[in-house]
Amino acid sequence: MKNLFTFALALLFCLCVHAQQALWSGSPLVSPEINPDHSVTFRLFAPNAQQVEITGDFLPQQQIDTPYGQMNVPGAVALTKDDKGVWQYTSASLSPELYNYNFLVDGLKITDPSNVYQIRDVSSIFNIFIIPGEQADLYAVNAVPHGSVARRWYNSPTLDMERRLTVYTPPGYENGKEDYPVLYLLHGMGGDEEAWIALGRTAQIMDNLIAQGKAKPMIVVMTNGNAAQEAAPGESSQGLQAPTMQLPRTMDGTFETAFPDVIDFVEKNYRVQKDKSHRAISGLSMGGFHSLHISKEYPDLFDYVGLFSAAILPMNQTQSPIYDNFDQKLKVQFAKNPKLYWIAIGKDDFLYNANVDYRKKLDNNGYNYTYFENGEGHIWKNWRIYLSMFAPMLFQD
Amino acid sequence: MKNLFTFALALLFCLCVHAQQALWSGSPLVSPEINPDHSVTFRLFAPNAQQVEITGDFLPQQQIDTPYGQMNVPGAVALTKDDKGVWQYTSASLSPELYNYNFLVDGLKITDPSNVYQIRDVSSIFNIFIIPGEQADLYAVNAVPHGSVARRWYNSPTLDMERRLTVYTPPGYENGKEDYPVLYLLHGMGGDEEAWIALGRTAQIMDNLIAQGKAKPMIVVMTNGNAAQEAAPGESSQGLQAPTMQLPRTMDGTFETAFPDVIDFVEKNYRVQKDKSHRAISGLSMGGFHSLHISKEYPDLFDYVGLFSAAILPMNQTQSPIYDNFDQKLKVQFAKNPKLYWIAIGKDDFLYNANVDYRKKLDNNGYNYTYFENGEGHIWKNWRIYLSMFAPMLFQD
Repeated sequence: MKNLFTFALALLFCLCVHAQQALWSGSPLVSPEINPDHSVTFRLFAPNAQQVEITGDFLPQQQIDTPYGQMNVPGAVALTKDDKGVWQYTSASLSPELYNYNFLVDGLKITDPSNVYQIRDVSSIFNIFIIPGEQADLYAVNAVPHGSVARRWYNSPTLDMERRLTVYTPPGYENGKEDYPVLYLLHGMGGDEEAWIALGRTAQIMDNLIAQGKAKPMIVVMTNGNAAQEAAPGESSQGLQAPTMQLPRTMDGTFETAFPDVIDFVEKNYRVQKDKSHRAISGLSMGGFHSLHISKEYPDLFDYVGLFSAAILPMNQTQSPIYDNFDQKLKVQFAKNPKLYWIAIGKDDFLYNANVDYRKKLDNNGYNYTYFENGEGHIWKNWRIYLSMFAPMLFQD
Repeated sequence: MKNLFTFALALLFCLCVHAQQALWSGSPLVSPEINPDHSVTFRLFAPNAQQVEITGDFLPQQQIDTPYGQMNVPGAVALTKDDKGVWQYTSASLSPELYNYNFLVDGLKITDPSNVYQIRDVSSIFNIFIIPGEQADLYAVNAVPHGSVARRWYNSPTLDMERRLTVYTPPGYENGKEDYPVLYLLHGMGGDEEAWIALGRTAQIMDNLIAQGKAKPMIVVMTNGNAAQEAAPGESSQGLQAPTMQLPRTMDGTFETAFPDVIDFVEKNYRVQKDKSHRAISGLSMGGFHSLHISKEYPDLFDYVGLFSAAILPMNQTQSPIYDNFDQKLKVQFAKNPKLYWIAIGKDDFLYNANVDYRKKLDNNGYNYTYFENGEGHIWKNWRIYLSMFAPMLFQD
């Protein structure tokens, strides 16, 4: 029989044929390479390219004019080519964070072929890397007990649909007997039940916070907030369609109306504490909007509410009983003294003024809430920070 | 407060900045587009590129000379550029299948920026699309009941490690009371616990076979067969390292020795039928090798064994009690009359002759097995077919 030495070699060769071109010319490129001083070197083998740039959130932003006003977008810098056709760029020393980037090859935005760590955000795919230390250590997989992550389907009688969600259960859940509190964690516009677990690093953040004793062990339920969708793109019978921001029935009251179906499923399928003081709801952007309106519509369900860079009011033409009697419902909700009503937003967020207005409303009525403001805007970096701050405040008494 | 019309528009704009360049020049490109005649049109906006090609398994293969002999690799064809800078290629009419592809832009292999459906195979990432019909309908998410997919961690006392695995539970598992049979499904060299669920479309195949009444509802456990690894790249405390084929302790008897730890975990954590007639083990390539050696080492554990394009013998220098007394152990295994010993391989597989030799050995000893041979070689297309054929033969009596 054929010598099995050949087995590994031939397989390896097979793979190389499929892998990056640089393999033909020697050893595989390392990109990104985190240097000891926390600068990062990026490399791309593209001997025929005229220009290679890199764009990412580790670079200073640039301000551009758009039809909707001035906006900050990630900057781009040029890589330089060596005589072997390898383009290279080394960043400044970076502070601890999970960063993202793409290459621009003669203007074409691509992912780094040497870096398999990619995340989808709606219809964009970018690479990630982590500069270790401080906050970023919450985003890494560390040698701590790990929870489980499951993709489940639940029946929503209100929507008459089978729908998909993602559930994090903490270490020890499966082999224990106790009941756990639940955080319902909602995505933004264009997102789905994959957004928090992938972009938000929910499992890593929860594993690490729980291991450090900073957060109570809890179940985290990540729903799909697009009421017209059964599941994330590619995970439903709609086939392999291109993801889009422009989904119907996202902020029209439908998801909020159907939300008790999610709670019903979770409370029938998991060992959970089924009372207001053991339920939290939070979300980013549209998911913050959903959290706001769900928590006031059902004032007896949630003792913890988190609005991360939240949209506040429905669009002007939207008609739904969910959005009627806003002030009266808020009054009822706050009269019941939620244990934590947490609002967080970045100074540069395009929803900043909407949140200022909303806080004024709460202040004018003497409603009790906690506010956190930091820099930058409507970005996942902030939402990971907010989750890392919010989770430790939950279920502590 | 700011009109929330602006909210969707501004967010949409944000995303576009991050998305493909083509969005600047009008509507987003559609790529791939499955045409009514099942030809497929691929598009890429790259006005500055000199040459754009596409390579994928839907194209005729080309034979190349390598240090290990002649090998078939996917062919490549050129796209043509229009006056707007959009490159385009339309394939021949394709038969139903899940296909993969990459673009080559001036020789640089990239994924299609318009197609978020990408799968990693070891260190390569490619796009996929599905031509519907026949076998390929098993690979699509259809409007049928869906099982759950969980990533779990188990303790392996034998390896003194916490290790990750992927578990498919069939529709109805969570809310039922009955016990289920288990298929242990093992990956090949360079793979991990993500390989079968992503490349192998295990959840889709099982959902569809079960919905059609062709397979019994069963639990499918997808392990990590690299005994030096806790988890797939990026999922362990090793950080975001580049995946590699060259892992230690993959075919040295370690994984086989520790396999009872997996069974122990599954049987303590799931409602399963804990006897030989309700356990199956199968795998591809190295995973077929593992299945072969685990099933003969523990002849009372598995009544169903599937070798998909399997490696047979260990490498010459390998020393492990697992591989000692091969013939004697096989004799014991077959004397216990496994219900199904299934061998499948493609005619072009580089392990074809090794499997011919192995079948001769089985024939010479009068051992009962079933053999399936089809075309092509050592590719995921075949392994999806083999799983689709193997699962319906399991646990039928």
